[in-house]
This record gives sequence, C-alpha cells and structure tokens, in this order.
Amino acid sequence: MSEEQLEVVDITSLNAIAAGTNKKVPRIVAAGLGGKLMGTADMVKVTAEEITKDSMESLAEKDAREKAKYANKKHISEQPVTLSNFHQHVNWLNFILVVAIPAFGVYHSIFHPPQIKTLALAFVLYVFSGVSITAGYHRLYSHKSYDAALPVRLFFAFFGAGAIEGSIKWWGHSHRIHHRYTDTSRDPYDARRGFWFSHMGWMLSKPNPKNRARADISDFAADWVVTFQHRHYLLIMILASFITPVLVAGLGWGDYWGGFIYAGILKCFFIQQATFCVNSLAHWIGVQPFDDRRTPRDHVLTAFVTFGEGYHNFHHEFPSDYRNAIKWYQYDPTKIVIWGLSKLGLAWNLKTFSQNAIEQGLLQQQQKKLDRMKSKLNWGTPVEELPVWTRHEFNERAKKEGLIIISGIIHNVKAFIKEHPGGQALVRASLGKDATKAFNGAVYAHSNAAHNLLATMRVAVVKDGDIIADTFELQEQMMAKEKQN
Amino acid sequence: MSEEQLEVVDITSLNAIAAGTNKKVPRIVAAGLGGKLMGTADMVKVTAEEITKDSMESLAEKDAREKAKYANKKHISEQPVTLSNFHQHVNWLNFILVVAIPAFGVYHSIFHPPQIKTLALAFVLYVFSGVSITAGYHRLYSHKSYDAALPVRLFFAFFGAGAIEGSIKWWGHSHRIHHRYTDTSRDPYDARRGFWFSHMGWMLSKPNPKNRARADISDFAADWVVTFQHRHYLLIMILASFITPVLVAGLGWGDYWGGFIYAGILKCFFIQQATFCVNSLAHWIGVQPFDDRRTPRDHVLTAFVTFGEGYHNFHHEFPSDYRNAIKWYQYDPTKIVIWGLSKLGLAWNLKTFSQNAIEQGLLQQQQKKLDRMKSKLNWGTPVEELPVWTRHEFNERAKKEGLIIISGIIHNVKAFIKEHPGGQALVRASLGKDATKAFNGAVYAHSNAAHNLLATMRVAVVKDGDIIADTFELQEQMMAKEKQN
Ligand code: HEM
Ligand code: HEM
Ligand SMILES: [Fe+2]
Ligand SMILES: [Fe+2]
Ligand SMILES: [Fe+2]
Ligand SMILES: [Fe+2]
Repeated sequence: MSEEQLEVVDITSLNAIAAGTNKKVPRIVAAGLGGKLMGTADMVKVTAEEITKDSMESLAEKDAREKAKYANKKHISEQPVTLSNFHQHVNWLNFILVVAIPAFGVYHSIFHPPQIKTLALAFVLYVFSGVSITAGYHRLYSHKSYDAALPVRLFFAFFGAGAIEGSIKWWGHSHRIHHRYTDTSRDPYDARRGFWFSHMGWMLSKPNPKNRARADISDFAADWVVTFQHRHYLLIMILASFITPVLVAGLGWGDYWGGFIYAGILKCFFIQQATFCVNSLAHWIGVQPFDDRRTPRDHVLTAFVTFGEGYHNFHHEFPSDYRNAIKWYQYDPTKIVIWGLSKLGLAWNLKTFSQNAIEQGLLQQQQKKLDRMKSKLNWGTPVEELPVWTRHEFNERAKKEGLIIISGIIHNVKAFIKEHPGGQALVRASLGKDATKAFNGAVYAHSNAAHNLLATMRVAVVKDGDIIADTFELQEQMMAKEKQN
Repeated sequence: MSEEQLEVVDITSLNAIAAGTNKKVPRIVAAGLGGKLMGTADMVKVTAEEITKDSMESLAEKDAREKAKYANKKHISEQPVTLSNFHQHVNWLNFILVVAIPAFGVYHSIFHPPQIKTLALAFVLYVFSGVSITAGYHRLYSHKSYDAALPVRLFFAFFGAGAIEGSIKWWGHSHRIHHRYTDTSRDPYDARRGFWFSHMGWMLSKPNPKNRARADISDFAADWVVTFQHRHYLLIMILASFITPVLVAGLGWGDYWGGFIYAGILKCFFIQQATFCVNSLAHWIGVQPFDDRRTPRDHVLTAFVTFGEGYHNFHHEFPSDYRNAIKWYQYDPTKIVIWGLSKLGLAWNLKTFSQNAIEQGLLQQQQKKLDRMKSKLNWGTPVEELPVWTRHEFNERAKKEGLIIISGIIHNVKAFIKEHPGGQALVRASLGKDATKAFNGAVYAHSNAAHNLLATMRVAVVKDGDIIADTFELQEQMMAKEKQN
C-alpha cells in the first residue's frame, strides 16, 4: 500500500477477534449434561465470515436466506408447537432446574413451616449467591469493570454456582452476546419477543441455530478459577446450592429437611427469579434517561429485587462502569460491595465512565425528548416556505386584510387585534406598516410568548426585505443594552 | 408615499398611544391628600417624545443626561439619607397607612384578646378585600383578562378600596407600568433594587421623577365604577376598611373596639403584606419555567399568601390570561373565583393564551437550560477547528501515536486502548487504519456514549476525506435497517 493511501480495517478479521474465533477456541458450553444445561454447542458455531456477512447486509435479507436453507428440514424452533412435538420444543433439563425443583420446594414449604434459624441461613445464602452473580458473574467477569483478589473470585465462583444459572464462562459469554446484539434476533434474551420470553421462555425452549452468535471470552482462559469452575460445574453447583445448606442447618440445629427446602431450593428459586428480572423487567418497565432507541430501562423496583442491577439503561450505555447507579439516592448495593472490597484491598482498577460522558448522554436524551415535543407544536410557517410579496402587493392588501410587517415578514394580525394584551389601538395604528422597531423595544420589548404568537401569524415575506426568522434576536440585543443600567 | 415603499410606524405617536397622552389626559393621581397617598403627579408627567427618546437610546446614556440635569438641584431621592433630611425622604402619609396604623393595631391586640366572632368577620373581610385586589384590581382591571357584571365590579371597587392600596385607577396604572417596564428603573417596584425596596421601600420613600412613566388607562374612563371610586376614594376606603367592620362587630355583638383592631386594622395589614409579596417575593423566590431573563418567579409559597398570584413567571409571560396557574395541582383560587363567576353569568370573555403558546415558552426555557448545561461539557474540538493532515502525514504518525480514522476524522486513542469496554485487541488491530464501518455496525454498533467519547479524542481531519462530524448519523441508519427485522 502506498504512503498516500489509507488502510481500511479488515472487517472479517476484526469480527474474528470480536468473536474470539481467531484463537484456539476455548469450549464455551460444557460437554454432556452440563452442556445441555448451558445451551447447545451449535448456538455458538459461527464463523467471522458469517458474522461479517450478516452485519454488512440487512437482517431481513439474512432471514430470507436462512428460511430457504431450512425450507425442507426445519429446526424444531421454527415448527409450530403441537401436542405431539411439544416435548421437542422444551429444554427439559432447564425445566427441571428452574420450574420442577422450585415447584417441589414451594409444595413442601406448605407442610413444613420454617425454623427461624433456617430462614436466616436461607437469607444469608441468598445474599451470598445473589451478590456473587451481580458483583462477580456480571460486573467482574462479564464486564471486567474491576479486578479482584483470589479469595473474592473463589467466593464468587462457589456461591455463584449455587445460584444455578450456569458457569461463569457460559453466563459471561451469553451476557456479552446480549450486550453486543441487544434487541436483535441474536440477543439470547431478545426483549422484543416479550416479557415472558426474556424472563424464562428463552431458557425453557430450544433456541434457533440460525441466530447463533459468539463473543470473545479469551480473558476467561487466563483465570483458573473460571476454567476450574466450568469443568467441575455440576459438582460445585450441587455442593453450593444444596449440600452446604443441608449440612449447616442439619449439623447446626438438626433441620436437614428445612435446610434443603428453604436454604436450598427456595433460596435458589428466589435468586433465579431475581436475576431473570434483569433480562425481563429491566427491559420492560422504567425510564430511559440515556437512550430510548433500545429496550433497557431504569427502575427502582428492578433495582430492589436485583441488588441494584435495575439501572439498566445506564448499564447498557456504560457497561464497563462498576456502578449501575450514580446518584446517592439510587439503590445499588452491589456497587457498595465492590467499593468496600476496594477499600479492603481486595479489589482494584474500579472502572468508571467520565462524568462528562454520563452527562452528555443525559443531555442528548433530554434534547431528543425536547425535539419531539417541539415538533408537535405550531411554530409558524418556516420563512423559506413563505411566498414572496412585492412591496406593492403588501401595500395593496395590508389594510384590507390586517397585515403588519415585522423583521421583513408579513403577518396577518386581523384575528389578533382584539386579543392584544397591549390593547387594540397600538396594533390598529401599525396596520399596513413596518412595526419592527416598535415591537422590539422602541414601544415595548415583547416577551418570548409574543414572539412565538407572532410567528404563528406569518403569511409572506417582503421581496428584498431584511428578513429575520428569529424575531427574538433583536430583543436580546436590546435587553443586553438595558442590562448596562 | 409611493406604492413601492414601505411605511414604517411612527414610534412617537405609537408611544403616545401606549402612554395615553394622545387623548385628553385623565387624571391618574388624585388631588390633595389622595394624591399624596397614591404617588405624585410629577411621576406621570412624561411625554411620548421623552419616552421615545429613552427607548431609542440606551438607558445608560439617559442616566448621564439626567444626572447632568439634576447636577445642581438634586432631587431628594438622589441625595444621601442623613439625620437632617430623613423626613424629606419618607412618604409620611404612606408611612402612617402601612406602618404606623398597623403598629397601633398590633400593639392594641396584645391588650385586647379577640372574640371568635370578630376573628371570623376579620377573615371574611380579608378574603373579600384580598380577592377584590387579585380578581378585581389585578386580573379584571389592570389586565382586562375578562369582563364582569356591574354588581361584581361594585363589590371589587368597595372591598378593594378596603385593602388600603389606592384606587383602581392608580393601582392599575402603576401595575401596567410595572409590566411594561419590568426590571428597569421605570418599574415602580423595580425588583433589581432588592427585596425590601420592591416590598415596601418604594412606597415609603419618595420616587425619583427622572424615572417617570405613563401607561394608557383610557379604558378605565369608560367604567363609571372606576372613576367614581377614584373620585371618592378616601371616603370609600374608610367606609370599607374601618367603618364597616366596626359597625358589624359593634351592632352585631357589641365588639366595636375589636372590630376596629382585628377586622379593621389587622385585616388591612395582612392584605397589604400579602399583596406587597407579589412585588417582592414573587420576584425573588421560585422557579422560572417560562423566561429567566427577568426577575418574576413561580413559587407555591407566594401563591399561598396571595390567593394564587404566586405563579408570577407565568403571569408576566401571559399577563392577559385570567389564570395564573394552569396545572390542576397549582394553588390559584382567584382563577376558580373568576371561573365560578363566569358559570353564574357574572363574568364572560375569559381570556387564555393558547396551550401551544404556553408549551412553546416551557420548551424554549428548557432548551435554554439544556444549552447552558451542554456548553459546560467537552464535546470534542469542532471539526472546523481541527488541523488538516495529508494521508501521508497520518500514515507516518499513526502507529507511533495511536491514531484511528473514523468518519474522516483522526482520533488519538492511545490512552483509551486499555479502557475500551470491547477489549484492547479490537482497538489495537484498528490502529493506523480507517475503522468507520467497523465502529458503526460492521463489527459493533456503538452507543451514543461511545460516539461522544470518540469525539473527545479528535486531533485532526484527513485532507479530502469524507468527514462526518456527527458520527452518530451512520449508526442511526444502521439501526433503522435492523428494525426491519
Ligand atoms: C402584531 C403582533 C403583536 C403581538 C403578537 C403582540 C403580542 C403581545 C403580547 C403577548 C403582549 C403581552 C406582554 C408580553 O408578552 O410581552 C403584548 C403586550 C404589549 N404590546 Fe404587543 N403584540 C403585537 C404588536 C404590538 C405592537 C405593534 C405594539 C406597539 C406598537 C405593541 C405594544 C404592546 C404593549 C405596549 C404591550 C403592553 C405591555 C404590558 O402592559 O404588559 N404590540 N403584546
Ligand atoms: C476508538 C474508539 C472507540 C471507542 C471510543 C469505543 C467505545 C466503546 C464503548 C463505550 C463500548 C461500550 C458499549 C457501547 O457503549 O456501545 C464499546 C464496546 C465495544 N466496542 Fe468499541 N470503541 C472504539 C473502537 C472500537 C473499534 C475500532 C471496534 C471494532 C473494530 C470496537 C468494537 C467494540 C465491541 C465489539 C464492543 C463490545 C460490545 C459489548 O460487549 O457490549 N470498538 N466500545
Ligand atoms: Fe440487558
Ligand atoms: Fe451487563
Ligand atoms: Fe410582577
Ligand atoms: Fe400583573
């Protein structure tokens, strides 16, 4: 390439980097039972070329292509659900873990009232596992928003497994795809498909391999905690979610069964539902102070059930910020935990976006809302669209039709004469004349409101006139002069 | 004048109309004692020529001129207050009416506890006189915001006089001047001179005739209620403010003295203070949703003490609207009274500004605030101010300095590489290259925040490059394409 040319990046090789396919591929889904639990391998089998092709053409075109491909041999997710194929649609392993076992727990809790100590244990484990998901799985691993010491990572890996939501590796991979492909068909929890799909539907049904996607998770390979947890996930999960509470409650105060039901099953159930809310509720209810083109939303309710992950509009805009909320009154205990760990020397490199970037986002979104509201109001015909009249034409028609010139623009004030707050006489005396100076201070320095009203009365511009569309400018100058006094 | 010329309004004759000097001048201040009470005649002796001269030049120049004029013979208001000239500064009649008599009332109330019936009478008269000022003096007469039947006007004239704030004619005249000259030296209660001046100072001290002003009140001449009240003001005032309560309380339940102190003096004192608050408090505390270039402000506290006149920012913008507040939750009982009268057929032609005009004002003010906040942030160097580099220059420096081209603009991303939420590898692979497409969707469709960050890294533009300052546009197109899916 000559010195005088610009090199353009090679999209395909960049996509290979972004998808991690440029390196020896680390397994994303586990083999065997673990694999079934954590999604199927064919969902991640995608090449950089395919991703590039997709990104360069419209997804509508892609759809057509894929439909043709599956024309004869339709994937189960593309076939209508019937009584006879129902069992094929469902991911039964996930069904057992997030529906059947919790139902079993709820059922038994009715006949087995809890001991207060067991409830306390359930609560403590709920917090441990919950925070391991939010501060660990999510902010540490998926977004690298800070670095943490080994004991902290071990804690997250152990109690995070106890939430029964898959390994760090699988969870982080899905989550990165969710961020990269938010609100597209590649988004595993695509919120456009409704509340139920993004809450649990996506994990209970078999996904369509035409939406396969990959994200780079090569950084996970560098942390043995992650790879170890992934390899022995089933074992660690059972240990953390069930065996630990059973043993603590059993050996501690003899409540084996209660430990299993309350501090085991029901605790997991609550964490699962809370976490699922980040994919459903946080893309469903609340405000959009940073960007309203996509589904993520901020809501304090979502924050309450998710240890502070409810400021999701902020989070999608500033994903690698260790905070999800920036105002002191917003509920984000996960942020406090991370901050606390940093004070103890157990966490460092806490990443934040600059206050400048955050305020820019807020202001741009406010501007968008303002523009939308502005476009609904009548601001008068734009000057460019007005007909041009000669002076002669104006003089001929002015008195009869009730016209006044202000700033080179002809206004029809006939209907307004009687409404004029400054009295009829002044407007009548100005009919057929140029009242620019009078209107702008020489008689009265009209308000903003008056200038707006005036604009709605535009009918034409004067040929070769000194046209000022923003009639307000003249007044601003005049007021500046007043200020001297 | 030829058909081809535009006639410009004659400013001086318009000012004569605006000041009412084009007609046989109705007396504005009364003769004798009444005149002293209601301002001095020399404050309104101003010609259209003088007003015009003032409006056409800056007030600073006017000041200089006036100073020269008064160089030898200074008006008392221009001389420093000393022990020996103190008595000349004070308007003693007003002092008696708004300070001495109320003080007398407060003093006696200490030794003469009130009867409950007398207090109730005081309250009723307080409401009668207060509403007569707000709905009558102010919204009906000063602003012609509606028309009212004779009995209503008689009620306002009688109980309004009982507030001891001057006649309708004088009050309305001052008030029109206040609106026309808000925050200038001609404003009788010029809020720029501080809380105390605009509250009571202006009426206790002698005004400076160099600030004389006039407003057209020829419409008052058409209402015999106004002219009659003006002519017999002192009599009606004493009747309404003192004799009525004394007689009612005395003949009713034998409490002549209490009627005088509570339902007479103290009632007047409270109304006066409340009304004065519109000139002081309403120009002092609160928000400015419509215009912040002048002092008027909206505050619920002011509204509470003034029967709803506290939405003063709205009122100065939309003076002839019969409402002062437009939201259902804002406290404006005066509006309800007027509306009630119209339902009874006793008021009509209730004027309002269009919802369009009101919302325009709100949006413009919000836009102003937004622009102010925007100007405090770093949006990157404007493209016009960036140096122009040849491709050669870019290629030479790019790798060493860490440069990337996006949308024809050269960005220094060196410090950002490690911060990139999408990982270092992608940015590194783009160094020294044009990454426009990759950045805008072919690899990842970056957020608003990313585009803002990018702008802050600008260092130069490429010669003959395809420069897009709003890097966001490309992405918007891409997202529109996604939507098809
Ligand atoms: C033809 C278009 C006009 C419009 C839309 C208009 C609008 C208004 C409005 C909305 C007000 C209320 C106060 C304010 O908002 O500032 C006002 C007051 C006034 N206008 Fe106009 N006006 C017009 C023409 C004129 C002309 C030609 C004159 C003088 C030659 C004039 C003189 C006044 C005066 C003296 C006041 C009274 C100020 C007060 O007492 O508050 N207006 N006008
Ligand atoms: C040089 C200036 C760049 C800036 C300021 C920048 C900024 C950002 C930001 C703020 C994010 C967080 C997510 C978002 O806000 O959308 C992000 C994510 C990302 N960026 Fe960049 N980026 C730059 C260059 C690039 C380039 C050249 C590529 C690709 C060739 C790239 C690919 C990505 C990817 C794949 C993500 C991950 C999305 C996710 O997981 O959420 N970035 N970038
Ligand atoms: Fe999300
Ligand atoms: Fe996230
Ligand atoms: Fe005011
Ligand atoms: Fe007013």
